[in-house]
Amino acid sequence: MRPGWEIGAVSNGGYLLALAARAMSEVAERPPLTVTGHYLAPVPPGPAIAEVEIVRSGRRFATLRATLQRDGRPLLTVLGTFGRVPGGDVARIDGAPPELDPYDVSQPVAGSGEPPFPTINDRLANRLRRGDDGFRFGAPTGRAEVAGWFAFADEGPIDELALLLAADAFPPAVFNSGLPVAWVPTIELTVHVRAVPVAGPLRVLFRSRFISGGLLDEDGELWDTSGRLVAQSRQLSLIPRP
Amino acid sequence: MRPGWEIGAVSNGGYLLALAARAMSEVAERPPLTVTGHYLAPVPPGPAIAEVEIVRSGRRFATLRATLQRDGRPLLTVLGTFGRVPGGDVARIDGAPPELDPYDVSQPVAGSGEPPFPTINDRLANRLRRGDDGFRFGAPTGRAEVAGWFAFADEGPIDELALLLAADAFPPAVFNSGLPVAWVPTIELTVHVRAVPVAGPLRVLFRSRFISGGLLDEDGELWDTSGRLVAQSRQLSLIPRP
Repeated sequence: MRPGWEIGAVSNGGYLLALAARAMSEVAERPPLTVTGHYLAPVPPGPAIAEVEIVRSGRRFATLRATLQRDGRPLLTVLGTFGRVPGGDVARIDGAPPELDPYDVSQPVAGSGEPPFPTINDRLANRLRRGDDGFRFGAPTGRAEVAGWFAFADEGPIDELALLLAADAFPPAVFNSGLPVAWVPTIELTVHVRAVPVAGPLRVLFRSRFISGGLLDEDGELWDTSGRLVAQSRQLSLIPRP
Repeated sequence: MRPGWEIGAVSNGGYLLALAARAMSEVAERPPLTVTGHYLAPVPPGPAIAEVEIVRSGRRFATLRATLQRDGRPLLTVLGTFGRVPGGDVARIDGAPPELDPYDVSQPVAGSGEPPFPTINDRLANRLRRGDDGFRFGAPTGRAEVAGWFAFADEGPIDELALLLAADAFPPAVFNSGLPVAWVPTIELTVHVRAVPVAGPLRVLFRSRFISGGLLDEDGELWDTSGRLVAQSRQLSLIPRP
């Protein structure tokens, strides 16, 4: 992450959620379907323990909770239901992937070598929609919206766990609003897995519609290259007082 | 759980979430700010125990988890952060309350005496937007959307806990889609409290945008009579195979 959208030198929220969910997924022996994390503290890189507990394990779904801890201090607590997307023929989609330039000609997000540089972005090869990096240069678009491509730098496949990471791996949409908001610590992040992506980068769109009362939402839609919605996300974040 | 809050033979999901959150709120000594429930079983009325645990209690926010149980069997498990809406001057709202006829001339939801009759509607005095009850008469609107007024029958005030109930106290929006969906058990429901409502009924809007893969979302917006957004909700539900 480049200066301007990181929170000091702390681990990315989506990365932490995926990390906790991976531990839960191993216990559940199923991939994540819907996962909610509540962020309790900023987390500098370092060792952490995931304490995982099964609440209910059924035939199709298992519900688990987990808390990431370091030195006995809770960092992130998670509730999730695990299981495959059930499938079914009833379908109606009111929406579409964001319109983007092709991946190869889009604006790369990462620029390695600018410390403090979270290692996670060495692993990503995200690209922003044209103009959506304007907030970096004092030229926000004026819309609380960020869109782009999500991909791993090693072109690795995007599985259900990766979708949790992808849901929080872009600059906050509010940065393009032009409002005086410099950082937005996440209180809560929920991700619903809606399908397993086909190969290739994801088209993603994040939007904050309700900025008020010291809080803001951010809704995310993640689409695969076949044009299918593969995840939805929503987070509630704090607008710190200046 | 008290009788009088059922849809058919089982307690309403919003009622159960509010019930669990009330127990958590008493322990936290703070109102709910963001609450997520995972529904583990259909719940007929009857006694239940809420096991509440503090994950972290800070100066401003407290994060707790709870599980509603009956006879040792988990029914609903909840993760929530409790605390007052912080307040702040930065604001931008991209949205507006649904346009509704005045409360007094809107269509009451309850039609007492028609079994199976959602008894919850005896406690509530909700009213639907004109036409949004069409699905009851074989005339769905064709949009997966339901809007209306939320109020208590006794005209009691709507506090933060009541917002959790209000987020799941209307017919599923998908019923107006015209799709062959007869019931939609909730897997997960998240509610963000965004403000304490002023007196009077709420204007509410629920919409399902992504119906696919045997799952559907339902997004809710709840507005008070001063025109302020007081809560957002999202749920993930299952479309049972016929």
